[in-house]
Amino acid sequence: MKKLFFVFILLYLTPFQLFAQDNGGEHNDPVASVILWVTLILFFGLIGRDIAKKFNQPGVLGELLMGVLVGNVMYFFGSYLIVVLREGAAIFHIMGDMLEGMSLNAAVHSAIPNGYYAKQVVTALSSEQGTELMKVGYVVDIFSRYGIIFLLFAVGLESSVDELRHTGREAIKVALIGVVAPIILGYIVAYCLIERCTASTDLFVAATLCATSIGITARVLKELKKLQTREAKTILGAAMLDDILGLVILAVVSSVVTHGQVDLLSLFNIIASSLIFFVACLALGPWVLKRSIRFFSRFLELWEAKLFIAFLFVMSLAWLATLVHLATIIGAFAAGLIIHDGYFEEEGKKTSVENSLKNLVSPLESILAPLFFVLIGIQVKIEAFWDGRVLLLAGGLIIAAIIGKLFSGVGANKKDDRLLIGIGMLPRGEVGLVFASIGRTLGVMSDQLFTATVLMVIVTTVMTPPLLKLRFARHKK
Amino acid sequence: MKKLFFVFILLYLTPFQLFAQDNGGEHNDPVASVILWVTLILFFGLIGRDIAKKFNQPGVLGELLMGVLVGNVMYFFGSYLIVVLREGAAIFHIMGDMLEGMSLNAAVHSAIPNGYYAKQVVTALSSEQGTELMKVGYVVDIFSRYGIIFLLFAVGLESSVDELRHTGREAIKVALIGVVAPIILGYIVAYCLIERCTASTDLFVAATLCATSIGITARVLKELKKLQTREAKTILGAAMLDDILGLVILAVVSSVVTHGQVDLLSLFNIIASSLIFFVACLALGPWVLKRSIRFFSRFLELWEAKLFIAFLFVMSLAWLATLVHLATIIGAFAAGLIIHDGYFEEEGKKTSVENSLKNLVSPLESILAPLFFVLIGIQVKIEAFWDGRVLLLAGGLIIAAIIGKLFSGVGANKKDDRLLIGIGMLPRGEVGLVFASIGRTLGVMSDQLFTATVLMVIVTTVMTPPLLKLRFARHKK
Repeated sequence: MKKLFFVFILLYLTPFQLFAQDNGGEHNDPVASVILWVTLILFFGLIGRDIAKKFNQPGVLGELLMGVLVGNVMYFFGSYLIVVLREGAAIFHIMGDMLEGMSLNAAVHSAIPNGYYAKQVVTALSSEQGTELMKVGYVVDIFSRYGIIFLLFAVGLESSVDELRHTGREAIKVALIGVVAPIILGYIVAYCLIERCTASTDLFVAATLCATSIGITARVLKELKKLQTREAKTILGAAMLDDILGLVILAVVSSVVTHGQVDLLSLFNIIASSLIFFVACLALGPWVLKRSIRFFSRFLELWEAKLFIAFLFVMSLAWLATLVHLATIIGAFAAGLIIHDGYFEEEGKKTSVENSLKNLVSPLESILAPLFFVLIGIQVKIEAFWDGRVLLLAGGLIIAAIIGKLFSGVGANKKDDRLLIGIGMLPRGEVGLVFASIGRTLGVMSDQLFTATVLMVIVTTVMTPPLLKLRFARHKK
Repeated sequence: MKKLFFVFILLYLTPFQLFAQDNGGEHNDPVASVILWVTLILFFGLIGRDIAKKFNQPGVLGELLMGVLVGNVMYFFGSYLIVVLREGAAIFHIMGDMLEGMSLNAAVHSAIPNGYYAKQVVTALSSEQGTELMKVGYVVDIFSRYGIIFLLFAVGLESSVDELRHTGREAIKVALIGVVAPIILGYIVAYCLIERCTASTDLFVAATLCATSIGITARVLKELKKLQTREAKTILGAAMLDDILGLVILAVVSSVVTHGQVDLLSLFNIIASSLIFFVACLALGPWVLKRSIRFFSRFLELWEAKLFIAFLFVMSLAWLATLVHLATIIGAFAAGLIIHDGYFEEEGKKTSVENSLKNLVSPLESILAPLFFVLIGIQVKIEAFWDGRVLLLAGGLIIAAIIGKLFSGVGANKKDDRLLIGIGMLPRGEVGLVFASIGRTLGVMSDQLFTATVLMVIVTTVMTPPLLKLRFARHKK
């Protein structure tokens, strides 16, 4: 353990100093500094993941917290890269503006409203490694966006259209209450506690509160060998529906934000285009898939054909989603929902474990998604908590998030343990983080609000597994 | 077939027009235009791969030729993106210079010496989508560089240090002659046929000629069920050694180019640092690996630990290689040579097909490497062939490449079919292309020379399978 750290320190820190003087051998290969930082970020994410698993917590949480830790410590020690990464998607606007001829100073100040942070970014970017930092920040952000596309694709893969059709009536009720209650509570909290709050911000906070992460609850239920209980089935069905409802709400809310105005006509337009997108995907997707499979599986090997078709399909839908002003992840989720191994078997070829879609996509997701969670962590500005109002806001959001989801258990059958079902719906997990990051990219979430939201996600995610275990233990008595 | 194309045209061309007017929904998600173009490039690559497989040719060749076709056709129709992509790594310098405050015009003309092409690039980049194109070109290039890192890692995975130790004496002789002969011939051809040729260019051409692609020959031998013949073993052993010798020569040559001067002292420095790098990797690599495995496999699942460790290992070595002024791919190859599934088994866990290193890395390689080959194809400026001297140069290189490798058969045992062994050594395949692209990034390969080199790679790669089959058919008689 000690030796390992010694080796890694030797491997990384020595070159660090070289990097400062040598500019990372830029002439040799332009990709060198990108490799260095992407690998380092992933490395920290994995350490976090490893520690989380040690304490029986979801890996996502470890990556996120390691991002918070490393980000704030390195910021404290004055790392220029962290100064840039902390501002998230601002780097896109800065680079875009500068390439269009704006000065560094003007570009930074137009992208980052907070003068204090903007000044730091200007200092970082006008340093000797400034250009390199800008490129690295840009590529890391692009990688992490690919990561969440694969992540939502994998979430979609775990659900299927057929399963959704057979969800019980109780699950539907639980899902609906679990979306409506946190939205109302969240809206009230946001309205009361956020200064100069716009309707868009209110809506976005509310949407973030309604997400449910199916992965975390499912894992705990599996560990406890309770997947076959009626409660478990209701929870999983409802969580799956929540994913879809959440994405639809995200679609509506972010369109409202982008368009800047909320009138009935544009609202109708948004809902109509989202619906048309989903229906078109569900109707045309299988047809396109079958034809592509027939075309590509003639000469390519089965695993190659599967990988390529899955990649083309998820990326096509992600891109088409942006055309109707939806987020890429909505397209990615729809792609996962539609595609399944069965399509490839119909063509007379068999699927084994090693060439299942899940296994083929998981290396891409496993490498890229941790980047996203570490980046989210880095963007959490811990100094925001010095402001009492942020703590108050975080507290309010956490309470709204918990009460709203616990209340959703009311939708379940009287014979079932309603509280248990409510607990199972608690964790926001990765989906909540994705929503928060989109809100930040769109500019409706301030640093303070973003920090408070991430804290809410962490708390609801951490508290679920022990609560579930406690509740199940009570059943036995 | 027709319907499939119709669907894809519908899927892609409609949005194309939208893209021109709508700027691709940039405000919605900054990754949208990147997704569009990366996916399109991959799509064309796969069509090429599919067609190549249909005609029983290596997939790499299809991707490359599709790149040549699409690139030149779209260039003819005035696509701005292709104008940018054609210039390859120039985009790195342009973006870097512009972010440092240089004007577009100055940045482009300093990166692209040819005034005619520079003017086209300025027009493309100063158009409305100019900024977006620059970002897309940058990201596509970064992706493709990750692609060749994974590619060389996979090539390394197929060889192993133990196997190399047991290579026969004949294979060593064949490998050495197969490196020396094409280098001498290539040097002569380059010296005679290239105007204003520097020593660096000469050396680079020679180095490109000495590569051997083990993959293509191995595949043909496997198809013919001749892998167990003595000739096959000599060919494969020699090709594996050629990979290593080629990379060492590449290391030396590119360091010479970067340093700009060739005196004995710097040559000694280069060779010493390359040797130290290789020895250090071989000596410390296994130690680091074992410790990392022990650390990460305690809480992570086996496949996760394998994927993460492989990724961290290959990227660390790739980056460390740039520190001693070697190419990233040399580090990647060394990583592949060192790591193998056995390390993970020692820790008491078993490897199955689905979690073998090869299977875990292949999705990353399969998605990213085709981007590289299509990009290489796009960079082939077909109009260069209008110049008779380029055709002459290409002819000279092809002859040197063929004679040099056929001659290598002399190193084999008298009892074996020496001509057969020479034929097996012919294909340059992906390794030759990687060398050529590095030469272009370093600025020692002109457009004309690059085009001629790619043609040489295509010809030697296409001619090998039928010649091998013919020769084996003769054996039977």
